[in-house]
Amino acid sequence: MNGIFYAVGVGSGNPLELTLHAKQILEQADVIVIPVKHANADSVAFAIAQQVADMRKAEILKMIFPMQSDLDYKNYLKSGVLDPVITYLEAGKKIAMITLGDVSVYSTASYVREILAEFGYQTSVIPGISSFSAGAAAAQLSLCENQESLLILPAVQSPESVQQAILQVDNIIIMKAGNALPWLIPMLEESELLDHTVMMQNIGMPDAYIGKPVIREKSYFTTLLIKKGSLKS
Amino acid sequence: MNGIFYAVGVGSGNPLELTLHAKQILEQADVIVIPVKHANADSVAFAIAQQVADMRKAEILKMIFPMQSDLDYKNYLKSGVLDPVITYLEAGKKIAMITLGDVSVYSTASYVREILAEFGYQTSVIPGISSFSAGAAAAQLSLCENQESLLILPAVQSPESVQQAILQVDNIIIMKAGNALPWLIPMLEESELLDHTVMMQNIGMPDAYIGKPVIREKSYFTTLLIKKGSLKS
Repeated sequence: MNGIFYAVGVGSGNPLELTLHAKQILEQADVIVIPVKHANADSVAFAIAQQVADMRKAEILKMIFPMQSDLDYKNYLKSGVLDPVITYLEAGKKIAMITLGDVSVYSTASYVREILAEFGYQTSVIPGISSFSAGAAAAQLSLCENQESLLILPAVQSPESVQQAILQVDNIIIMKAGNALPWLIPMLEESELLDHTVMMQNIGMPDAYIGKPVIREKSYFTTLLIKKGSLKS
Repeated sequence: MNGIFYAVGVGSGNPLELTLHAKQILEQADVIVIPVKHANADSVAFAIAQQVADMRKAEILKMIFPMQSDLDYKNYLKSGVLDPVITYLEAGKKIAMITLGDVSVYSTASYVREILAEFGYQTSVIPGISSFSAGAAAAQLSLCENQESLLILPAVQSPESVQQAILQVDNIIIMKAGNALPWLIPMLEESELLDHTVMMQNIGMPDAYIGKPVIREKSYFTTLLIKKGSLKS
């Protein structure tokens, strides 16, 4: 009897954003998988979850996900990286992998889950509050209403494709925008959209920022919300 | 000293999808506002929240939101409908309005919050798990990965604008798709996207459906996920 792998979204910074389900799964897990950038790195996601979920009984397994935009994660995960997880699964353990935000939105946990499912193991997804839901809530802005559309795209796309995409929808979320601000801000100014844009950084954390898009200290957790209609509501 | 109005997202069907924050706010509220379609209607959102949050001490205030796509909710809300809420706010009460899914995504609670904020009252938003996050989790599919974009749009848009939008992005969520299935299904077939589409209905509820898009009993909670790349992961 094999175990089960849960990909668990823990929300975007505020520990109270954990769902009841996420807390329950984390507290029942035999093993907690924590994704880190390198062997000695800390995990923001674990630090958040730890404040509200008691995981002291579980074994902790760090899994290294290098921050390389050109890395093919699916191939990387098939190269033996998952062996420790598989050993636990074969031993019938309940494994929960923590991920920031929502599992379905640009998360490495969903790659891990997919590969494990391909290998024939039982998997499950516990959804979390995405960074854009948390950001919109903190800014007290709607993401979409009535007949409006909402486009979510990562700033790793080319400036040209971002510019074109922005023209065609009512509301736009640009994720992972931190490194792209030097070209995004002038682009928005030229398109007369800078006054329709809110930058949300480190939402739910002590150094949270909600306001005009400006280049501040680098942060991985930078999201822009562009509302063509109005920044009200 | 005036009270405060919370717009609280309770997730999409599974009571365990409530966040710790939503549970806390609902249990501390003096008044729970429940949106209903007509005076004798029940609230799915309240039925869900009640299973995990103890609201027995709170006063219950039903607020009628007729299901009319042509209704201008903001004007409707300025016509005196909010007077009972305002009376409670003036009395210094904590008021929590329950809404399905996430507050920022097509919710009437965000209109109520906006109007109350315009009137000068203190408001706050507690984000919830959106129907598309819950659906993607249940279907064990990602919404977007790597450089991919995700477009969310309601099927109340015209077939032409939906068709055009679908062509330009990698992943598409079509919300409120129930009534539009008679034209959506042939459109997807013609675009050779039907095999790339999952229909998610009543996720988290006993009669949940995840599978091929088909016309079943009418349901308000019908969401389509179209993944141009592949339905895997």
